[in-house]
Amino acid sequence: MAKFIVVGERIHCISPVIREAFEKRDPEPILKRAKEQIEAGATYIDLNIGPAENDGEDLMKWGVKLIQENFDNIPLALDTANKAAIEAGISVYNRDKGKPIINSADAGDRLSYIDLAAHNDAIVFALCSAGAVPADADERLVFCQQMLEHGLTLGMEAEDLWFDPLFLVAKGMQEQAQHIMNATRMMNEMGLITTGGLSNISNGMPKEIRPIVDSFMLAMCMANGLSSIIANPCDKKLMETVKTCDMLLNNTMYADSYLDL
Amino acid sequence: MAKFIVVGERIHCISPVIREAFEKRDPEPILKRAKEQIEAGATYIDLNIGPAENDGEDLMKWGVKLIQENFDNIPLALDTANKAAIEAGISVYNRDKGKPIINSADAGDRLSYIDLAAHNDAIVFALCSAGAVPADADERLVFCQQMLEHGLTLGMEAEDLWFDPLFLVAKGMQEQAQHIMNATRMMNEMGLITTGGLSNISNGMPKEIRPIVDSFMLAMCMANGLSSIIANPCDKKLMETVKTCDMLLNNTMYADSYLDL
Repeated sequence: MAKFIVVGERIHCISPVIREAFEKRDPEPILKRAKEQIEAGATYIDLNIGPAENDGEDLMKWGVKLIQENFDNIPLALDTANKAAIEAGISVYNRDKGKPIINSADAGDRLSYIDLAAHNDAIVFALCSAGAVPADADERLVFCQQMLEHGLTLGMEAEDLWFDPLFLVAKGMQEQAQHIMNATRMMNEMGLITTGGLSNISNGMPKEIRPIVDSFMLAMCMANGLSSIIANPCDKKLMETVKTCDMLLNNTMYADSYLDL
Repeated sequence: MAKFIVVGERIHCISPVIREAFEKRDPEPILKRAKEQIEAGATYIDLNIGPAENDGEDLMKWGVKLIQENFDNIPLALDTANKAAIEAGISVYNRDKGKPIINSADAGDRLSYIDLAAHNDAIVFALCSAGAVPADADERLVFCQQMLEHGLTLGMEAEDLWFDPLFLVAKGMQEQAQHIMNATRMMNEMGLITTGGLSNISNGMPKEIRPIVDSFMLAMCMANGLSSIIANPCDKKLMETVKTCDMLLNNTMYADSYLDL
């Protein structure tokens, strides 16, 4: 099996510091968070500029160049509902370390983000949902197969569609955690690559509990074959989880120092 | 699914304090460790008297009565290679809270411990091994099925055979961790009850790493359907793992206070 992939989620316009840096085109806060995430073990950096309806194209180009030029062309996930901004970002994107990821398509209103990925030779995160909450693992697989077929028809490779079983909040929809694990296993058995937005699972829980729930949900999903996660790599417990589960899955070699590597 | 079961392992003759208490028939250290484990969440208490070749029968009877009479007939696992001592323990065992467990049979020299369980209407831990290290999950399943057939032929119910996929040390036999998870899943899919000696997985690792490896190995095995574990319930991280995974598997209800329950 391949080593587990962490997509760092901390450059996100929902953070006031990042939003202000975007507005002022101030490199420092962006570079600081990119550096912290890369040092903590992120393989990809997610660049979430929000809806960015006015200046999305310029902002995404600025962000892509800023991060890639300062961090040896680290691969990025371009995260916005603004398609023109995604294409603008890709126009300046350096592919030396990997294709860009488009974040994200779904099987409903956002199906056309798969077309966007196909036309731009990009990877796409594909949410197993058509807008509503999927009832169970089987319904997730229906959406997965619709999106897979759509991508393949457009000439994509299956490995460029990373399927997200749709991580939902356990507090209130507790039975969904099992459905997520089961959907992950089914997609893994189909040979598909999987991903997900981990922290949704612990939304609304007390803040001392959230890292515990996130950590064990991740471990249980890795045991079901999850390939990657969108999360905060600066959370020490999260990376401890990734490194330990990767070792137990024989994806990385054990050494007494494995947590420090 | 049923709530996960923890068999507390801390009354073990390998501990100098416990060995001395056994020799002197001193109740206090035994009662102290039983109390700590029960308060921490153990469902069963393992009573390991070692080979106990001289006075095993008397010692096991003393231990069984001591713990059950002081803790409301909590169910016990009787752990020794001395069969006469196990039968002596069962002769004074109170079944109000559950059958006794015999720890343990295997598919080799210890196959006859399944006969012992059948003749005494007991549960038996059944190690999926015939002495040597099983190569993979499939070989574990061969041993599992041999023992299952043996027990059924003797009139046992399948639910009274708790199959242990044989937890082995990851440092040196790293690929075995996956085989353990896969064997657990296969046995779970057959509707069988599973268990295991968790701490073997982290043998020889630095002591600050052991609870981390134990914890995630347990979470990954629970994600594969493991039913119970033989472990130290006084390890806070272990019980945090059990409670969180049980919640994510929908075996227990979420509450903000679930870690304290």
